[in-house]
Order: sequence, then structure tokens, then C-alpha cells
Amino acid sequence: MYSFTLIKKDKASSGRVGSITTPHGEITTPVFMPVGTQATVKTLSPDDLREVGAEIILSNTYHLFLRPGHGLIREFGGLHGFMNWDRPILTDSGGFQVFSLADLRKISDDGVTFQSHLDGGAKHFFTPETAVEIQEALGADIIMAFDACIPYPASRDYAGESLERTLRWAVRCREAKKDTGQALFGIVQGGMYPDLRKISAEALVDIGFDGYALGGLSVGETKPMMYEMIEASVPSLPEDKPRYLMGVGTPEDLIEGVDRGIDMFDCVMPTRNARNGTYFTSFGKVVIKNARYERDQQPIDPECGCSTCRDFSRAYLRHLLNAGEVLALRLGTIHNLFFYLNLMREIRQSLDQGRFREFKREFLAKRENKD
Amino acid sequence: MYSFTLIKKDKASSGRVGSITTPHGEITTPVFMPVGTQATVKTLSPDDLREVGAEIILSNTYHLFLRPGHGLIREFGGLHGFMNWDRPILTDSGGFQVFSLADLRKISDDGVTFQSHLDGGAKHFFTPETAVEIQEALGADIIMAFDACIPYPASRDYAGESLERTLRWAVRCREAKKDTGQALFGIVQGGMYPDLRKISAEALVDIGFDGYALGGLSVGETKPMMYEMIEASVPSLPEDKPRYLMGVGTPEDLIEGVDRGIDMFDCVMPTRNARNGTYFTSFGKVVIKNARYERDQQPIDPECGCSTCRDFSRAYLRHLLNAGEVLALRLGTIHNLFFYLNLMREIRQSLDQGRFREFKREFLAKRENKD
Repeated sequence: MYSFTLIKKDKASSGRVGSITTPHGEITTPVFMPVGTQATVKTLSPDDLREVGAEIILSNTYHLFLRPGHGLIREFGGLHGFMNWDRPILTDSGGFQVFSLADLRKISDDGVTFQSHLDGGAKHFFTPETAVEIQEALGADIIMAFDACIPYPASRDYAGESLERTLRWAVRCREAKKDTGQALFGIVQGGMYPDLRKISAEALVDIGFDGYALGGLSVGETKPMMYEMIEASVPSLPEDKPRYLMGVGTPEDLIEGVDRGIDMFDCVMPTRNARNGTYFTSFGKVVIKNARYERDQQPIDPECGCSTCRDFSRAYLRHLLNAGEVLALRLGTIHNLFFYLNLMREIRQSLDQGRFREFKREFLAKRENKD
Repeated sequence: MYSFTLIKKDKASSGRVGSITTPHGEITTPVFMPVGTQATVKTLSPDDLREVGAEIILSNTYHLFLRPGHGLIREFGGLHGFMNWDRPILTDSGGFQVFSLADLRKISDDGVTFQSHLDGGAKHFFTPETAVEIQEALGADIIMAFDACIPYPASRDYAGESLERTLRWAVRCREAKKDTGQALFGIVQGGMYPDLRKISAEALVDIGFDGYALGGLSVGETKPMMYEMIEASVPSLPEDKPRYLMGVGTPEDLIEGVDRGIDMFDCVMPTRNARNGTYFTSFGKVVIKNARYERDQQPIDPECGCSTCRDFSRAYLRHLLNAGEVLALRLGTIHNLFFYLNLMREIRQSLDQGRFREFKREFLAKRENKD
């Protein structure tokens, strides 16, 4: 059921257009995946997601394992049935979350023991095998190998040891995975060390996965450093598999990622910012609580085609947010996701038409000028 | 632009079917008005409101006066333009809210001085004239006279004095109102004293309004007492004007109100309960946080035709609410409002077909049996 087709390679950049076939339909790449941590992209219904043009969403294994539990979700035919979303879903492995628990987790070569952020007392144990098993119960179209995450900054020794552990765990994930029709992606680690990134990518390709993700980026490093890590990894990855830059990023990051050969992205930025009243536009950010918007009858972005910009003014959104009305959260999320997903459409189109670098130049100039 | 047409009178009850023509379209009565206090029916967009079948919504003058201010809303062509709702709107006068401020307000015959619940320091002064002026700026299709509200319980003397003040204020509202095409409704007061209710109704009819509301009910009195007050007022009101029971109520209250000749209702109950996870159904209440719904794959109400019941299970709604996901608030609100508005459709239909009392009996029996 799963396959990846490379449709077009850009001549001027490493950008490419592709298509991923999954049990729940096709995805055209480069693609941005809205984040639906708790089996819902915050504030949006599945109808809203279709309206903004979402092709695939991401959900978080760690959160769903704790609440409502993957056993319950399995009874509903997996996440698709539970949340009534009939298009593709990707789940992460929970690795990033359990490694983020700091004092609440203990790492061994077998796996990670952690205390839930919900019921502080309860101890749980994640291994590569359980991470795969839980993701099989959740039933996502694409699932992720359980990786050892590296904080930033990290010493070369620590990064190297973590990388080795991630590779051992990657093998165990590969072996544990049943024949469910789900795709399994490996995760390139290696901290901010280009040679470790290369070693990681090559070793993962030797194991063999349906796609390859770059983990541990956008964690505090500079932009040039992030770009360098992408450039250190991508050449070692096969052309005929999708490449996924995890947890990234700003509109600029997406364009720079595509330029370097990335096919998939996810990030909470458009959804989280929307709930704070920070909106993305073709000319830069709009911080709606700013007093200058108090009586502003314009939509967030006069060039935007989303339903929020069609129906509502900046002044109304500002009022809703100031008055604590949750409608503001949904309307803002619709706008920000539409902006991100529309940007990806424009990127794909420009790649198709062989003018990606031109598009990139114009897009960046426009946002710089008016920000 | 404003008119009321009495279409059908029920033979077995005082129920009636009517039609109100307003500058923003027609309303068929009996009608329930969802409450949109701050220029939004909490959690819903105008598209959602159309989907659940709302014909008219209510908004609150007191809240909008304080935030964002009626001057700002006027710049947007009134509430309709500001919130992008193109169907009828009714605004209350702010009387109920300023009288509820207890220690923060001072009443004189001229009006009410009050301190805002938002900016505790700022003092404001509402008079019959300012209440009309603010409502003219808000631009609702139906506006309400500024009334003196009576707490429950209240002595006969207090109720009588308040009633007299309400009548003097009603005259001033009538005189202050400009020729805006907006309908102005008077408000029957009189506490829980049937003879005062009668005096109030008759005096208001002498002044002459486009419709008549019953205020100060559902404030803690018993159901029989509320029904008695309706029965004491309605016979003194003209047949050719709509009758509006303010702030009421439960599904049972709506049916009992219609039975006694009421045409219009508003209440926060369906929207507020939805946000607490309490859902109205044909067989009684569903309190979704109850553990019995944890793995329940059924919709809230298998007999319901709303989009929430079409798309989502009780278990999913319970998960969303437990996880603090605001999508739960909107999905629940859609269901509860659909239930209320569908009930009104069924009531109108039963009146049309001369079988209202039969419908009432069946509806009440069904909810009693399974609650």
C-alpha cells in the first residue's frame, strides 16, 4: 500500500516534487503536516482540516499512550476512526517527549523508563518494541522508529553514543514491526556534528526504511547550523525515499529545507502562534493584540484566500482574543494553517514549473520588506 | 421593515405560529435565540450558526458597550458587519447586567451608575436614553427597553416601585428611539405578583411597543410560579405582537412557554452546558465526563441529525474534554444548539399540524423515562 514516487527534480536546487501513496490516500510532497497531538489539531475539526488543505496530519504517540490509551483507540479502528479523519496520519515514536522529561526519565540500552506528566506517580517503560506496538495500535499510515534524542548543546562523545543507541534501536524497530501496511521511517541523529549525521544516515540506509527523518534539529542551534546538518545528511539518503525534517519550522525554514532536498515537515508553530494571536502573512507577522489593529477593517492578509480572511476583520479577531472568546483560536488556526499549506502548494507549483529559486527569492524579499 | 404576522393559533393550547419580518430577514416563531454575548455565540462561527439552524441570535449591550465599545461596532455597520452575521439580531438593554452588579451600581430614577466588571475603576451611567442610543449603534433588528430588574424574592412594595420605574423608563425609551427601522420591545416586570404582572402588561400596551417581553423570570422561583406569571401576563398582551420570555430555559420550559402563548426565548443553557460536557438529548441529559462513556462508540444522541452526532463518538468527545481540547466545546455547542433549534422546529410543525399537545406529551414522557 505504501510507496514513494519521485516526480520531478529541480535543476537549480535540491528541491523535488514527489508523491507518497498510503493506505489512506496520496500525499504530494513537499508537504507540511499540521500537528494533532491529542488526536485533534487544536481547535479544528476534520472538516476544517480538509478546508485548509491538509493532506496528512501528525499525532503524538506519547500523549495518546497516556490519554486515552492506545488500547481504547484501537477499538475505534485506530486514530482514523477515533478522530474521524480519513486521510493519512503520521505518528511520532514518543522518543522526543520521553527524552524531554528530564528528571522524570531514566535511559538504558533497553529503553526509557519515565513518569507521566499527567499522573506524576505512574511509571511507564518505552522500548523500541513498545513504541512500534503502540503505533501499530494507533494505526497511522507512517510510523517512526524510537530514537535516542540529543540535547543541544551536546558533546561529541554524547552525540556519538546516542547515535549508536539510536541505530541499535532502529534495528529493533525494524525487526519488531509487523506486516501492517504501515510505513516505518528511521531517524537520522548525530547532534550538530556533520560527520556523525553522515554516519547515521548511511547506517540507517543500510538497515533500510520506507523513509528517513532528520531529528534533533530546531532545538536552539543557529539557522546556518541547521542547514549544515541537513546538507550533511541528505546526500547519503536515497533519492527514492521521502525525507522528513522533524519539528521544523518557520515559513523561511520550509523553503530552505525544500531547497536542500526535504520532502516533509511538521511544526506546532502555525497552530500555537495562532492561539497567541500571531498570524503569518505574505508580508510578515501580524500580532493582532497590537493596538494598531483595534479599528482595522482589513482581513489578516488581504492576499489570503482562507475563510477567516474572507469573513472577518483584524478588529473582530482582536476583540475575540481580548474577550477570551475561543472562536478566535479556531479562526486564527484556520488562517495560519491555510498560509502554511498554501505556501507548500506554491512551492510545489514553482518546482513543477522550474522556477523554485525565483519563487524563493520573491517570497523572502516580500516578507523581509514589510515585516 | 418590521412586522409580525400571526399564522396559526393552536386550538388545544395558547400556542401559536407566527412570522417576524426584520431588516435582516424573516424569523418563524416560536423561536429560540442562541446567546452571543460578546458578538459571538461562544465557540461558533456564523457558518456554524447557519448549520445548526439559528434564525436569530441575541447579543448583550452591557458587554459590547464595555468591550469593544458600541462606537467601534458602529464603524463596522453595526453588529452584523462586525461579526459577519447577516440574519436577525436582538440586543438586550443592559438592564439585567447592570442590576446584577450588586454593590457596584447605584440606581436613581434617572438611570443606573455602575462600575464595569472589567475595569473596576471606571464608572458608567446607563439611562433609558443611552441604552437606546447604544442599541441603535449596535444596529440589532430588535432592541429592548431599559428596565428596572427585580431580585427574587422581592417584597410587593419593592416590586411595585420597580415596576413603576420600568414603566417611566419604557416611555422614555419609546420617546428616545429614532426612526432606525429597529423594533423596540417593552418588558413586563412585577416580580412574582400576578396582579402586578397584569398592571405592567396593560400599561406597556398602552404605551405601545413592537413586541412584549417577560422579564425577571427563571431567577430562582419554582416552575409553577414561573408558569403562573406567564399566565398572568399573556392575556393582557395583544395577539398581533410577539411575546418574548427572557432568559428561559430548559427544553421543558420552552414547551410549557409555547403552551402558554410565548413566541420567543433565549437562554445560555444549551451553550453553557455544552462547554461543561452536559448534552441535551431526546432521552435526557448525557454528562459526557461520566466513566460509562469512556469506550462508548455511539454518538451523543443516536436520533440526532447534527454534524457532531454524524461524525463523532461519545468516547472521542469525552477524550477531548478530559484533554482540555477546545474542539470539544464547539462540537458540544453544535449538538446542544441543534437540539434546541430542532425542538423549536418540531414544536412549530406540531402547532401547524394541530397536534402540539400530543407532541408535548410524547416529548416529556420520552425524556422522563430515560433520564
